[in-house]
Amino acid sequence: MWSTEDSQMMSLAIELAKKGLYTTRPNPCVGCVIVKDSVIVGEGYHIRAGGPHAEVYALNMASDDARGATAYVTLEPCSHYGRTPPCAKALIEHGISRVVIAVTDPNPQVSGRGISMLQAAGIQVDVGLLTDAAKQINLGFLSKMESGLPRVTVKLAASLDGKTALANGESKWITGPEARRDVQRLRARHCALVTGVETILADDPSLNVRHSELGSLASEIAPAEIHQPLRVVLDSKARLGAKLNLFNVPSPILLVSTCDYPESVKSAWPSHVNHQILPAKNARIDLDALLKLLGQTCNSVLVEAGATLAGAFVAEQRVDEIVLYQAMKLLGDKGRALLALPQFESMAQIPNINLIDERKVGRDTRLTLKMSN
Amino acid sequence: MWSTEDSQMMSLAIELAKKGLYTTRPNPCVGCVIVKDSVIVGEGYHIRAGGPHAEVYALNMASDDARGATAYVTLEPCSHYGRTPPCAKALIEHGISRVVIAVTDPNPQVSGRGISMLQAAGIQVDVGLLTDAAKQINLGFLSKMESGLPRVTVKLAASLDGKTALANGESKWITGPEARRDVQRLRARHCALVTGVETILADDPSLNVRHSELGSLASEIAPAEIHQPLRVVLDSKARLGAKLNLFNVPSPILLVSTCDYPESVKSAWPSHVNHQILPAKNARIDLDALLKLLGQTCNSVLVEAGATLAGAFVAEQRVDEIVLYQAMKLLGDKGRALLALPQFESMAQIPNINLIDERKVGRDTRLTLKMSN
Repeated sequence: MWSTEDSQMMSLAIELAKKGLYTTRPNPCVGCVIVKDSVIVGEGYHIRAGGPHAEVYALNMASDDARGATAYVTLEPCSHYGRTPPCAKALIEHGISRVVIAVTDPNPQVSGRGISMLQAAGIQVDVGLLTDAAKQINLGFLSKMESGLPRVTVKLAASLDGKTALANGESKWITGPEARRDVQRLRARHCALVTGVETILADDPSLNVRHSELGSLASEIAPAEIHQPLRVVLDSKARLGAKLNLFNVPSPILLVSTCDYPESVKSAWPSHVNHQILPAKNARIDLDALLKLLGQTCNSVLVEAGATLAGAFVAEQRVDEIVLYQAMKLLGDKGRALLALPQFESMAQIPNINLIDERKVGRDTRLTLKMSN
Repeated sequence: MWSTEDSQMMSLAIELAKKGLYTTRPNPCVGCVIVKDSVIVGEGYHIRAGGPHAEVYALNMASDDARGATAYVTLEPCSHYGRTPPCAKALIEHGISRVVIAVTDPNPQVSGRGISMLQAAGIQVDVGLLTDAAKQINLGFLSKMESGLPRVTVKLAASLDGKTALANGESKWITGPEARRDVQRLRARHCALVTGVETILADDPSLNVRHSELGSLASEIAPAEIHQPLRVVLDSKARLGAKLNLFNVPSPILLVSTCDYPESVKSAWPSHVNHQILPAKNARIDLDALLKLLGQTCNSVLVEAGATLAGAFVAEQRVDEIVLYQAMKLLGDKGRALLALPQFESMAQIPNINLIDERKVGRDTRLTLKMSN
């Protein structure tokens, strides 16, 4: 069904889509390639929410050459008037004769309408080319659209014997500078970071993305283009005070607790701090309620927390992926544990994980593990 | 100084030497290639202690063609009458005109004598080609010769969070069948296995090399060719009884304690069980004394023990290499620790290790780590 040219052009469209990885959210990454008589006459990708869609860039580039051409799009063209006019309409108006789509619109209420609009205009529409590869670049967006819940990634860093710090808490630096820069890029791809009150009390981190620490990415993205992820702190007993390094960075913060903070603390918060009370479950914030809340605005959540909170996400099967930075070190049994999990009685009870990627990051190894919940 | 042909022929000699990896000990692995007018006229390797040396196989193959030829040998030819006549003499008698040597005899009392004997006969001797590569295949032999101590490798197996078993002790199977076969091959390359009494009491293992579990190696080595490593059990308080699975396999066993066993136990031991009392250090067997004892007969020691004994070897800097089999699993903080080490107060105190090899073994990863003591 698919020609070699079809596959090549959709691969290119997917590569273009990836260029929006750090800038499009909460919108999906989308790429578009327009081909006429085996010549690429237009290409484009979605750069940021509110800006033109991939198809618009590609059609503008193709101009009159779009007439009778084939458009390869990684996601079904939109059919509705949002902040921009519908792309299906633009493709029709430019005289495109065939549209190849990798992934249909995941929103069940609109899925297929872009296709119908194109077909009604007499355009040949072929759906399903390189679908898996095209889904990979929008896993968070697809998760939110399909389930209302964000994709959850847990970031961990430990020695070869699974320790995050010495007994006295010293952890600088278990992993090297390359791994720390990689974490900055990981943060920059997520809509929200989630951490626990213990991490804030122990380290008083800013939890922001620092342009100077993005490594190779710094040359591809301007400081102003960085989307600072929403910083979410789980503070079930409302223990945090009003003076934190977190507050000194002006991007949004969400404090989540199961009871209210004292007025004296709340009144001292800067304006970029929001607060939400959620129900408790086993004396902790209910993670289901948290993820439903975050799913209203976030495609993807990165959990950067201590053994207890990270372990709760894993034990409650609320994790899609684990990114583990492993340092070639041995800290010994007195060091601090990586992940607090229930006491298992048999191997059948342990979490089901699969290695999906492994690479060197400086002297450390980064393992990407998929969890089957 | 070295021609391309020199390097190629010594590489081949090293590859030949490796064929003896499982059979030559306590002798070193040695390979020999004889070349005349750029044609290989003889090759051989040392197969087993007491049998002919590599040079003899190669000279027999070359026969009259050895006259005026160059012999490439991975280790300095011997100059003394042992169980076989000196190889230097054989090389002279066959009329070899040049000998290229990778590594000189590591025994300082004999080093250079083979070379002198060859030179005295008018043979050109060139030393030092591919020395590092040739040393790699005899690290244990070289260690014993140079320091009187065997090379020590610690084998570890753990989950990604550094746990060897669940809290209840269940550990079957953290690693997969390929990793367990790899451990059998690792055992088969070592002169001795060292374990602790706790492992014997908990698992009652046989600690032997099982031909049926050697995987790909099984087709290259006959069951009778397997050298069963000396099985060494550290039982400082002489707690072991007289009935153990260990005793059912008839290869040698060495029980080491700091006090004597009751006569009733000793009299029940089969004849392949030996016993040695060694001094204590911090209420445990002195590892220095142990390694000096083992260095009298063993090139290489594989430590397969629990967190306490393996940790003692690491903490006391008595380890050359760690082989860590890492299963893509998470067991959580309640699981059993990989390595008991002292409570470090700063990162400067942790063991100094370097990754030297990493590969997939089935679904597990095998990391080879070099320790800098």
